[in-house]
This record gives sequence, C-alpha cells and structure tokens, in this order.
Amino acid sequence: MLEHGGNLRDAVHSFKRPLSEWLDLSTGINPRFYPAPIVADHAWHRLPEHSDDLLAAAKSFYGAPEMLAVAGTQAAIQSLPLLRLTAAGQSRVVVSAPSYAEHAHQWRRWEHQVTECLYSGLDAAIDEADVVVLCNPNNPTGEVIAPETLLRWANRLEARGGWLIVDEAFGDTNPNLSVAAHTHQSGLIVLRSVGKFFGLAGIRLGFVAAHPTLLQRLAAHLGPWAISGPAQQVAIAALRDHAWQTDTRHYLELQGQRLRGLLIDAGMSSSGTDLFQWASHRDLSGRTELLWHFMAERGIWLRWFAQAPFRPHGVRFGLPGDEIGWQRLSHALMEWTQQYV
Amino acid sequence: MLEHGGNLRDAVHSFKRPLSEWLDLSTGINPRFYPAPIVADHAWHRLPEHSDDLLAAAKSFYGAPEMLAVAGTQAAIQSLPLLRLTAAGQSRVVVSAPSYAEHAHQWRRWEHQVTECLYSGLDAAIDEADVVVLCNPNNPTGEVIAPETLLRWANRLEARGGWLIVDEAFGDTNPNLSVAAHTHQSGLIVLRSVGKFFGLAGIRLGFVAAHPTLLQRLAAHLGPWAISGPAQQVAIAALRDHAWQTDTRHYLELQGQRLRGLLIDAGMSSSGTDLFQWASHRDLSGRTELLWHFMAERGIWLRWFAQAPFRPHGVRFGLPGDEIGWQRLSHALMEWTQQYV
Repeated sequence: MLEHGGNLRDAVHSFKRPLSEWLDLSTGINPRFYPAPIVADHAWHRLPEHSDDLLAAAKSFYGAPEMLAVAGTQAAIQSLPLLRLTAAGQSRVVVSAPSYAEHAHQWRRWEHQVTECLYSGLDAAIDEADVVVLCNPNNPTGEVIAPETLLRWANRLEARGGWLIVDEAFGDTNPNLSVAAHTHQSGLIVLRSVGKFFGLAGIRLGFVAAHPTLLQRLAAHLGPWAISGPAQQVAIAALRDHAWQTDTRHYLELQGQRLRGLLIDAGMSSSGTDLFQWASHRDLSGRTELLWHFMAERGIWLRWFAQAPFRPHGVRFGLPGDEIGWQRLSHALMEWTQQYV
Repeated sequence: MLEHGGNLRDAVHSFKRPLSEWLDLSTGINPRFYPAPIVADHAWHRLPEHSDDLLAAAKSFYGAPEMLAVAGTQAAIQSLPLLRLTAAGQSRVVVSAPSYAEHAHQWRRWEHQVTECLYSGLDAAIDEADVVVLCNPNNPTGEVIAPETLLRWANRLEARGGWLIVDEAFGDTNPNLSVAAHTHQSGLIVLRSVGKFFGLAGIRLGFVAAHPTLLQRLAAHLGPWAISGPAQQVAIAALRDHAWQTDTRHYLELQGQRLRGLLIDAGMSSSGTDLFQWASHRDLSGRTELLWHFMAERGIWLRWFAQAPFRPHGVRFGLPGDEIGWQRLSHALMEWTQQYV
C-alpha cells in the first residue's frame, strides 16, 4: 500500500497523543463538509440501483455531457490502466510529477511503461506518450494548467488513439479550469470527486466524464451496485444545493487566504488552492522534517512528503475546521517563528 | 451487464405501475433490516481508514480466524479471478449450477476455462478442477452441502494449489453450515455478506475469510478506503448486536414457514432458506412465466429465472415486509389457485 494523508492512527501511535486531541491538517478536505441529510431507510436496505437523478445532478454541477458514478475516483484510477491494457496493450504512460501517488502506482501495476515528468516538461512529452495523466489543479503543489493547453494536448493524443486523463479532484473551487465540458471527444477523460470540496470523503463517490463508449466499458468492468445507497442520496442533495455551493466557495476563499496569511507571517512561501497550501523544502529553507515534527509534537498533523525521485519534498497544510483549530495553528506557527526564523 | 433481482425500475416501466405501489419480492433480502443508527459526522467526512473494530466484530460474528472487509462480496467475486490469473495462470474452474450468475460471468471475463456443474455432479468434478465455486446454501434453489463434504473437497483442491470458494451470502440463518472457521487452510475462501440477513444491501459491505497471504493480496488489489465510513459504523453495530441477531433468526424462521405454508396452500412445491423460496418450472407444472406475469399484473414483483443451459427455470419469492404485503401475496396466490390449480 502507498502512504496517504489522513491516517491519524499513525499520529496517535507515533506521538502518543489520543485521537481526539489532534488537529488533523493532513488532508485537503473541506472541514465544513456538506451536512448529510437524514438518509431514507431504503437507501440502507435495498440493492443500490443505478440512479438517473444522481447522474443528472452530477452532469449539471460539473458541466459534463456524459458521466459515470464510481465508488470514489480511486475506483477509476485503479481500473483505467487495466481497460487500456485490454483495449490497446501496454502503453507509454506519462504521469505528471509530483502528483497524487496512486496514478503512477496503478499504471505500473499493469505493466505499462510509466515515466514521470515535471509539469514544465509535459508539453514536450505529449508526442512520446500514449497516455498522459495529470492533476489540475495539482495535488500537492497547486500548479495549474490552462484548459486551452489541455485541450491541445488531448487533440494530439486523440489523433493516435491516446488518452489525456485529467484528475480534477481539487477543481471545484475554481470551475473555470475544468475541461469536463469537452469530454465528448474520445481521448479526454476527466475525474471528479465529492471528497474534497463537498468534504464527503467518507462516502466513496466520484465521477468520470468521458466518451460514452469508454464509460460503458468502465461500467461493465466495475460491475453492478458499486455506489452505496446512502452515498447516492447524500450526493444528489449536495450536487443540487446551489446556495450551499456558492456560500462554500466564498467561505473556502476566505479560509484559503487566512491560511496563506499565517504561513507568510511565519516566513514561509507556499502555493496551493483554497483547500490546502504546499510549502516545499526550498520554501522551508531545508527545515521540512523539523517543521513537520515540531507541529506533530504540538498535536498538529500535517502531511509530510519525503524526498524521492519525482516526489516533492515538503509539507501540505489543510484547513482547520474551527476557530480553536485556527488558534492552535497560529500559536504553533508563532512558536516556530520565534525558535527558527 | 447480467440481469439481477431487485431492479424495480424495470417493473415500473414494463407494467406501468408507480414504484410505491409494488410489493417487491424479487430479492432474498431480509425486509426487517437492521435499523441503521445515527451515523457520526466524521464517517461521512473523513477518508474511511481501515477499522480494526469492524474486523474484530466480523471475525467474532462469522467465527473466522482472519477476514478482509470488501465493498460488497461483488468486489471479491470480481477480483478473485484476476488474482488467480496473475498467481497461477488460466485455471480450470468449476462453478456449481444453477447459481448466482456473477460467479461464472466473472471467471469467464478473465479467460479461465469455466464449466458449470450441477450440485449432484460436484464431487466427481473436483479432481478435474483448479478452482471450484459454489454457494452454500445455494441461491436460488436453497440446496445445501454438508461442511464435512466441503472440507474434504477443499483438502483435495489445496493438495494441488487449488481453491474452493464458498459463497455463504445466505448462510446467516443457518450458521451450522458455515466453513468460515476453517479458512486458515490455504485453499479455502469463504464470502459473507451483510446484505441478506442484516438487510443492509445498500451499504456495499461484505467479508472474505481466507488465508492471510491471500487476504493481503486481495487488499492490495482492491486499494485503499474501499469501505465507506457510514457502512463501517452501521456494520459494527449490526455485527455486535447479539440480541437483534437472535431475535431476527427467530423472526425469519417464522416468516420462512409462513411463506412455505402459503405456497403449499397454492399447490406449489418449493425449496429455499428462511429468506426466500424457490419454485422450479417443474414445481409449477410448466406455468413459470404465467405465474410471474400473473403476479406482476397484481403489483407483486417476483424474480423470474428464464431457462438457459445450466440456468434453472422458475421463480423466487422473497419475504413480504409487513402484514399488508403478506395479505396481498396471500390474496394473489388464492386468485392464482382458483384460476389455474
């Protein structure tokens, strides 16, 4: 298994502090998540049939012509390499780096020829690849690529039967970046998640926007009843709730500014989205592990990315969920500044 | 996609009767399902980590030495053929017939050499197979195989690196049939589901009992966070609730007797478990489709199994969930008797 954010049990075990006393900033999940409505009995009880309402709500929210609901984008990330293998054989796959680690891991599992490539080198790499995978905005660095650039790349790949896979898991705070509306073209695949912006990481639900032929193959591969009944009900409500969405975009914009501000006050450069900030080893003047450990000793759980080839070295800060959390983070950063800056 | 029970939308569409007016007896799911407790916020919100509590509750309830939680046994049914392929190459697979259709379908998908075999022929088929798959009790016919027989078969298969896969999805009303306690031996794999007895088909959760080495490979294949947070919480409560389990076994025994009694009164032989009864084409004197259609016209949705090689021809009756449902079924069966028996 790869290492992922969010594993608070590790924090409890390594730093001997009970679960309830941690401020968990290790994920990029919206802490003010969509309030789950009461779930009707039949959602727990019945086999969860395919829901036209869910797909209609998703297509409207994401602006995509056709979508498939999947049990978390993880299900799609695991399946696409295998679908590619059976359809087109082993492929040359370029995965943007640094990025969400599951992408490269899953393509390697099915013996594709995977190379990782920095964002700055992607344009040159397109013509040597059959499949290109990237996150936009990127996790953890917050880098973005303009939609026009992505569509050009998709066209070049499609011309020879290739795929451009754009993971837009962190795309909801900046919808202008999305290329979901263009997925009628056969080489473009977009992944969306209700885990981050809606804060519903627990329900295992994501969506794939792509050409109908590919979506049908993916649906057949994933099998029946993949999405739980409660997940369907909660997501339909969340995707339709325009008032909550507008309010939350505004809220997250302010929270993102507050986090950036605190880090600047602590002498750190950073980049990111409204949901997280990334401070690289260079931003931290080489004190990455020291900072991570300093915060963990104070019960603040950041995500530390250890150095490795094409892996960034740095820490990612998520958003505190309440004022007490903000005060704890602010206080700890002040201590850090006094001691090390 | 294969045809499955439970698809009430088909009923609505074909018979022009609104969803709310159907008595759905097309599944074998306990209609008095485990009452889902209020789910804590973090279950919706956080990435669903692996839960030791869930596994402990499952191992205790099922009496298995080691288990893995999966997003419905469907996830295991889809994955085992692929794991077998990568570990041992294409295999000779015998699937008991008639049976839950997904088993043969998924083994064929990965190009194993699949043959179907009636229950009566299984003993002779073991030595010609690398993998044997069966349901105990069987769905839809209710046939059962004694645990001692299964363990003998498992030993014969294990001796040459083979697998015996026993799908015990309908095993909870008769725990004495289970071989889950013996899954420390490397050739025996048992599948359990919270969908049927607990009536929690909507949450997508099942368990695999098997040798730890196989469970580790399956876990790596299925990837992280497969089980939703709400599913984990509800299942822990259900698996620990001994009072509910005892009461429900008793309740289902009475319900099963009532259903058998009604069918006998209507002149039908049947077989099954406490959760469903199966009436074959022969039991119905060749009037299978007629009965199914007669009931559907009265808003009672049975599962009709059309004839095909190694597919049984007949109908399956699930349990009505309340007295009104029982009265509707009873009345319709009386009409049927007056008209056709």
